[in-house]
Amino acid sequence: MRRHLKDQVKNRHKAFICKSLGIAEVICTADVATGVKMGVVCGLFGGAITNLGSPEQTEKWYMPITELEFTGMFAMTERGHGSNVRGILTEARYEPSSQEFLIHTPCEDAKKMYIGNAMKGNYAAVFAQLRVDGESLGPHCFIVPIRDHEGTMYPGVTAIDMKHKEGLHGVDNGILVFDNVRIPRENLLSKFGSVSPDGMYHSPIQNKSQRFNAMLAALTPTRLALTVQAMAAMKLGLIIAVRYSHSRRQFGPKDQEEVKIIEHQTQYLRLMPHLAAALALTFTTRFAAEMMDEVLHQGRDLMGSRALQALIAGLKAYSTWENLACLQDCRECTGGMGFMMENRIPALKCDSDVFVTFEGDNVVMLQVVVRELMMQYSKQFENRAVFGLLKNWSSSASDTLRTSFLGFSTDKVGDLSFLLKAVSYRERVLQRSLAARLYTKVEKNKDEFFRAWNSCLHHVTSLALAHIHRVTLEQFALAVQACQVKADQTLLTKFCLLHGSNLLYQERGWYLEHSYLTPTTSRTIRSQLLDLCRSVKDDALKVVSDFNVPPCCVQAPIAGVANPRAEWAFYSSPQHPDQSQQESKTQSKL
Amino acid sequence: MRRHLKDQVKNRHKAFICKSLGIAEVICTADVATGVKMGVVCGLFGGAITNLGSPEQTEKWYMPITELEFTGMFAMTERGHGSNVRGILTEARYEPSSQEFLIHTPCEDAKKMYIGNAMKGNYAAVFAQLRVDGESLGPHCFIVPIRDHEGTMYPGVTAIDMKHKEGLHGVDNGILVFDNVRIPRENLLSKFGSVSPDGMYHSPIQNKSQRFNAMLAALTPTRLALTVQAMAAMKLGLIIAVRYSHSRRQFGPKDQEEVKIIEHQTQYLRLMPHLAAALALTFTTRFAAEMMDEVLHQGRDLMGSRALQALIAGLKAYSTWENLACLQDCRECTGGMGFMMENRIPALKCDSDVFVTFEGDNVVMLQVVVRELMMQYSKQFENRAVFGLLKNWSSSASDTLRTSFLGFSTDKVGDLSFLLKAVSYRERVLQRSLAARLYTKVEKNKDEFFRAWNSCLHHVTSLALAHIHRVTLEQFALAVQACQVKADQTLLTKFCLLHGSNLLYQERGWYLEHSYLTPTTSRTIRSQLLDLCRSVKDDALKVVSDFNVPPCCVQAPIAGVANPRAEWAFYSSPQHPDQSQQESKTQSKL
Repeated sequence: MRRHLKDQVKNRHKAFICKSLGIAEVICTADVATGVKMGVVCGLFGGAITNLGSPEQTEKWYMPITELEFTGMFAMTERGHGSNVRGILTEARYEPSSQEFLIHTPCEDAKKMYIGNAMKGNYAAVFAQLRVDGESLGPHCFIVPIRDHEGTMYPGVTAIDMKHKEGLHGVDNGILVFDNVRIPRENLLSKFGSVSPDGMYHSPIQNKSQRFNAMLAALTPTRLALTVQAMAAMKLGLIIAVRYSHSRRQFGPKDQEEVKIIEHQTQYLRLMPHLAAALALTFTTRFAAEMMDEVLHQGRDLMGSRALQALIAGLKAYSTWENLACLQDCRECTGGMGFMMENRIPALKCDSDVFVTFEGDNVVMLQVVVRELMMQYSKQFENRAVFGLLKNWSSSASDTLRTSFLGFSTDKVGDLSFLLKAVSYRERVLQRSLAARLYTKVEKNKDEFFRAWNSCLHHVTSLALAHIHRVTLEQFALAVQACQVKADQTLLTKFCLLHGSNLLYQERGWYLEHSYLTPTTSRTIRSQLLDLCRSVKDDALKVVSDFNVPPCCVQAPIAGVANPRAEWAFYSSPQHPDQSQQESKTQSKL
Repeated sequence: MRRHLKDQVKNRHKAFICKSLGIAEVICTADVATGVKMGVVCGLFGGAITNLGSPEQTEKWYMPITELEFTGMFAMTERGHGSNVRGILTEARYEPSSQEFLIHTPCEDAKKMYIGNAMKGNYAAVFAQLRVDGESLGPHCFIVPIRDHEGTMYPGVTAIDMKHKEGLHGVDNGILVFDNVRIPRENLLSKFGSVSPDGMYHSPIQNKSQRFNAMLAALTPTRLALTVQAMAAMKLGLIIAVRYSHSRRQFGPKDQEEVKIIEHQTQYLRLMPHLAAALALTFTTRFAAEMMDEVLHQGRDLMGSRALQALIAGLKAYSTWENLACLQDCRECTGGMGFMMENRIPALKCDSDVFVTFEGDNVVMLQVVVRELMMQYSKQFENRAVFGLLKNWSSSASDTLRTSFLGFSTDKVGDLSFLLKAVSYRERVLQRSLAARLYTKVEKNKDEFFRAWNSCLHHVTSLALAHIHRVTLEQFALAVQACQVKADQTLLTKFCLLHGSNLLYQERGWYLEHSYLTPTTSRTIRSQLLDLCRSVKDDALKVVSDFNVPPCCVQAPIAGVANPRAEWAFYSSPQHPDQSQQESKTQSKL
């Protein structure tokens, strides 16, 4: 881990993001709060330095983190500005006489809030409006000392504990207030803007707004980490719920042994689609991580990869919502046992609940996605070439895919090719119609842009989700195609069909409205979904076992991990139905 | 409160249920755990005695509770049998020589689990399989002493603390184990079955299964209390989220003041349907409570009112799920603030999460509803008269309603009469088609009943929810009709239309499949929903204020209730937009 963090700077190894995400997932599997705290220190604070700082600054403030010589925090959000970070109010005024910046909190709404590690960390990467010689230069990032190793606060800095939260009790969130805090000129992270000793501002990007966008791009890798952390929580929930559902029995045919609860139609209908989504997210996250590694390895900055940023914003929203829905179903499907802390699901729910609103509120993330899709659309309209990276997930991708699935008959509703075509169709129609609506409102009716956009927000969020749904299904399909092991491929194909059928089933209202499905085919999709869920319920045991999470991380007694504190919750590990059926046959012979 | 509890026995006052529910809602508004614990002691333990015991037994064990001379618990659920309570394994063997029952836990799965008040209470109402002279007589309820006032355990009784849960930390849940615990013969609650000193069993109900059903009916009032408790949590969440949404500003037109977050389309789309549902539930719960008071006042037992039991089971499932969805949206709509304990929403979520699986798992509750609907259906089929109580909510009700709303044109989609007709249509079609499917499977194909039923579970749960949706819309409509204050009636009409439009919008896939909506009318429903949500977003402030919850119960600083522990969270009370608009106009003049 330590070497991995150093390698980022020293050797710029090629798969840094992929490897980081692997580490993040493993840590979150053990404890979500630890994962989030590490994300704050290494990803957000560390990432601010490596992405916004000079090589010297990286040497000075990033390398010591890898040895945990000190820790840091990321101070962007303010009381008044969380989602709309552009509007932050904290000030950084340059004073040429002392060659120092004065970091200041001018009002209540400017207080830095929800800052993770605020009660323990030594340094903060603080975003503040830079003012040089009376001129406002927009938000920049500064390294501000918060407290030394003895806990003595740096002059002018106040930290207030925000205390109890729904979850993430292992992360100390606090408020930072700056009273004209003096920091050296060198503490302005200088990649996108620096001030000379005599107070001359210099930046490689002239436009204030573009400059800030470049800085925000630094957030992208941590957002992807959040997707992986949500996935870790989802997988744990599914391991626990699926295993318990294969152990616990309740109800059954008259005068016979009660059946395993996984046999109840409602039980497998609630759990199997989430399992399919977890797989889809796994493959899509890998795809995004590889793209990001590619960009970083080629030395391009993330700012230029708008399509990638949009994909990651969409993945963040979809994965964190899907995680909450999944954990809620896992909790309900495990009944009272799922409400007990010893069985882990409650803590997973409470710890990951904040994922949907932090590091970019999900509703805002969806708008990031659509802004990119609208840009793409207008580019198409202008007949400009869609650049390289987009190829993988642009509207043409589904056509490429369609031809590559010749093994499936295209006649049948519910074939993978049909499903891929359908999700792609939905995205395209929503994209086109949104563009038309916005055009009419803004260009024709001369509506103010914010109001026009706001009046389409429902459409916007539908499009963003349609986009990300399509990408997940495509990436799942590509992963199935690439799978070398025949048995695994067969199994994954079923889950991929299930994921696609579920996406269509969820939006069947829309498809029927657009006559893309007829009432009959819509019903067929439902039957197919029910059939697929039933057909994979036993395979689910293999899939959750292949998640390869060690028992010490699963922890839950109902999933077969004994715990002396809660012997009453223990259910021994379930066996695959084929095996246990044989056993019960043997028993009944005795 | 004390007098109220006593009145139940002494004066059998007419509105006991309605008044009890009022008290339950108020207590839950202050603290959910206190409400649940009171529900355990007075509702479940107390209810077991008053509903299953003789007058003498009520005098002996119920009256002291009203003075809190001791407290009790309700021990039905076992490790192996939660939902399927019929299968409980705890034994109660009668010993004529000592005239005692021996209460015994024969195996791990027979341990009484999740028992509220198990670590503090003095007596337990224990459900056990009665055996007299080797004959098994089915589950009965016994009063078993657990510990005296000094905390000394009764011989043979063990209580194990289940410790930490997701929420409800104020309720001590534990496990009870009985090792041949001896209790006097008089401790068998004797209304539905008693044993004479010489070991002769007597019961007014000969059929074992019917007898147990009669006992289970005793649970019905507490289930209705749970609906009210879920409503209390919902209302609190809505008060907090609506008020904050009218205070906090974020984003806005370029170079203008940021807008209140309630102005964002996504924000009002997420909150307003829940507010409408909270109102619908309020009226429906009142209706159910009045029906129950009627039944009890007439001295009929609840067992006979199967339709009422089904309604209450459905309400329990719908209200507790709707509460969770509502609180989740309230949490997300209040962002990071909603994740902080000081703002109350996290605790409300965690405390009420278990509502969906305890006192009858929601999926099981929906099956209770449908069993009743199927019985009604077969009765219709046999041309038997549907008895009195059903009239209020049978399939004919919507026709009565339709004629009583002459003020609305029936031509327009989205008129209340259209919406009422649609939800009624959906229920009837789902009912008819389920009956046909079950008939084919069981009668024609001779499928085993459990398997046939299980293969239709998705259909079953859809029907149950369709039923309860229809009842809530009808009761809302009737309440609007009965409203005497013109301004309130106008306001309620909008929310009623919103509730109906939302119910249709959620199920538009189904309506399109059945050609009940055309693609065009389906789109109209969506626009109407968007319009209605926008049109009531300011009225919402009045509605949440009319919930009349005092600030000491609201507690949340973001809702305008100052808290010295979290000054950073305080937002002053929002003003109605009309007033504040005037103010900001005045300000801009200055």
